[in-house]
Amino acid sequence: MDTGRLRTWPVMEAYISKRKEKIGRFLAEVLSGRAEQLKTVHQLGEQLCGKLVDFTLKGKMLRGGLVAVGYELYAGSNDSITVPLGAVQELFQSALLIHDDIMDRDLSRRGAPSLLGHYVSFARERGLRDAYHTGESLSICAGDIAYFFAFEIFSGIPLENTLKSRLLFLCARELTYVGAAQMVDVLWGADNDAVSLEEIINMYTYKTARYTYALPLVAGAMAAGAPNGEIAALELLGSRMGVLFQIKDDELGLFGDEEKLGKPVGSDIRERKKTLYHHYLMSDPDTKSRERTVSIFGSERLSGDDVGFIRNRVRELEIQQKIDKLVADITDKAEQEIRRLDCSTHGKEFLEQLLSYNSARVR
Amino acid sequence: MDTGRLRTWPVMEAYISKRKEKIGRFLAEVLSGRAEQLKTVHQLGEQLCGKLVDFTLKGKMLRGGLVAVGYELYAGSNDSITVPLGAVQELFQSALLIHDDIMDRDLSRRGAPSLLGHYVSFARERGLRDAYHTGESLSICAGDIAYFFAFEIFSGIPLENTLKSRLLFLCARELTYVGAAQMVDVLWGADNDAVSLEEIINMYTYKTARYTYALPLVAGAMAAGAPNGEIAALELLGSRMGVLFQIKDDELGLFGDEEKLGKPVGSDIRERKKTLYHHYLMSDPDTKSRERTVSIFGSERLSGDDVGFIRNRVRELEIQQKIDKLVADITDKAEQEIRRLDCSTHGKEFLEQLLSYNSARVR
Repeated sequence: MDTGRLRTWPVMEAYISKRKEKIGRFLAEVLSGRAEQLKTVHQLGEQLCGKLVDFTLKGKMLRGGLVAVGYELYAGSNDSITVPLGAVQELFQSALLIHDDIMDRDLSRRGAPSLLGHYVSFARERGLRDAYHTGESLSICAGDIAYFFAFEIFSGIPLENTLKSRLLFLCARELTYVGAAQMVDVLWGADNDAVSLEEIINMYTYKTARYTYALPLVAGAMAAGAPNGEIAALELLGSRMGVLFQIKDDELGLFGDEEKLGKPVGSDIRERKKTLYHHYLMSDPDTKSRERTVSIFGSERLSGDDVGFIRNRVRELEIQQKIDKLVADITDKAEQEIRRLDCSTHGKEFLEQLLSYNSARVR
Repeated sequence: MDTGRLRTWPVMEAYISKRKEKIGRFLAEVLSGRAEQLKTVHQLGEQLCGKLVDFTLKGKMLRGGLVAVGYELYAGSNDSITVPLGAVQELFQSALLIHDDIMDRDLSRRGAPSLLGHYVSFARERGLRDAYHTGESLSICAGDIAYFFAFEIFSGIPLENTLKSRLLFLCARELTYVGAAQMVDVLWGADNDAVSLEEIINMYTYKTARYTYALPLVAGAMAAGAPNGEIAALELLGSRMGVLFQIKDDELGLFGDEEKLGKPVGSDIRERKKTLYHHYLMSDPDTKSRERTVSIFGSERLSGDDVGFIRNRVRELEIQQKIDKLVADITDKAEQEIRRLDCSTHGKEFLEQLLSYNSARVR
């Protein structure tokens, strides 16, 4: 799968993990202060603060790290801005995942109970009425609170007024797109209709790509005072990188290592996610195989045999090759865009590494 | 029930309805522009914008109006600030209600389908799998998007930097309290434990009071440059007014007019809301009556007889009188606080009317 490309990214990996450490420390400190305050409402609020820190720290913190990348493409490092702005992105991500897990009924995430899983267990242990729904409701609140913390932290970032308002607009507007794309994801997961390649890429763009790569890169670059032309170029580049990220996510979801991923392989099938694999499998020329595929997607009791069948059919129909070709096309365009950027050579090398990271990551 | 108090509030009513008109026009304009953009994701996003305008316009828009009240206590009218800041409060409120309706499984709100009701019907009509859950999931997204629109609109309000950041902090922090209090509401609705008077008032304070009255009044006053001492006084006053508002809400929920309220009388009982009525009924000295009360609260199939029994027990135990005494105490304190404020006489008269509005409103 894209064997010619660079397979190591030591600089990028070390960089992101250093950012993760800083953002994690910052978040833990801010939220432990907030825990004290929310205690005046109820201990549920206090406990949530700790849960949110743990949950957020379990992620890769790619988004939070990318804020500093975007900033440092155009200026020197500046933790007083990139750490809180990174923390904001990470809290957005946590909030999105918390609500996403309710929609997908995922009781675990990142190898541990999801917030939904936690609150459903909490409700069951206390013998609460309608425990599952009570757990869902508490998780809706938890996700909402994570968003509010994000905006609260944003309010304290030391930025000049016009820039700060522009950044707030950028984040909030992007989240409306993510929300709308999430609605599409819900809709698609609830019917059997085939979806076109174009629609899938559009959905990937708004649900994951722009928000995972373009938003943090652009936010960082904007905070560093990058010119508008560069902002527009980074937005496009980030969007492409994000689509690649999502396509890799789908591959890992079907062929990856459960332990490394922290989620069961095949959950995309059970949740009837309309991935590129789904798209190509729906045009399986063999009617019997296609019918079996249709019956497997969305099945509540997915067996190992079912997953094996799908994997096998992906191989037989050479679907991975088609996807790899798409990936190569997008990667080429992204590489051209990186070259055209008006930032430091070091910055370009870093973005190159980031691009290659996608084709080789295992979680 | 508080017959001694002023029963008319023509100035306030006219004022709030004029604000509602302005905020409604502003929201409709902003969201129709956003509908065009969200269409690029999917028509679900486009349609939601219209739904959000309709839903928000069905409310009283008290919170949005109170922003201008707070502002005009300390400065002349300034629509360029108070209209968008009012719209922000109203979108917060819509988002909260959208998520609240999921938690309470309310398919209608304000005399029309709730967003949950709308999306569940949508899912059923389209024959989507697991229609109720699909409707819930779409509503979670809808509420999230309403929050994001609120913060997006906030970003465009023309305010000086320190003040704008302070206001953003104020709103976001208050919402974290609302979220935590909502968790308590969910928890209490799922068990049979009795709750103390103090705990109930504390919950009312954070779930409704501060956010409905204190937040918009303080936000408006802050935007107008009111001194810190006045801000603190308004916060306390708003919190008391909000507690009165919630207590009245409970009364209307048990004794009000379904048509005017736009929701079925008795829903608080079905949802096992721990209101002041619930608190006093739980110490019913008659064991048999208390047992029947316990069996009625939280009952899925609430009959007219059940509601009649509860109403009757409230009368026999003179619970309304106890609540009225509490209301009178809080009202007295609020009146003293109004007198101590350092704003115009006209402003004080207006706040007096606002206070009296609570004891007489029917929806």
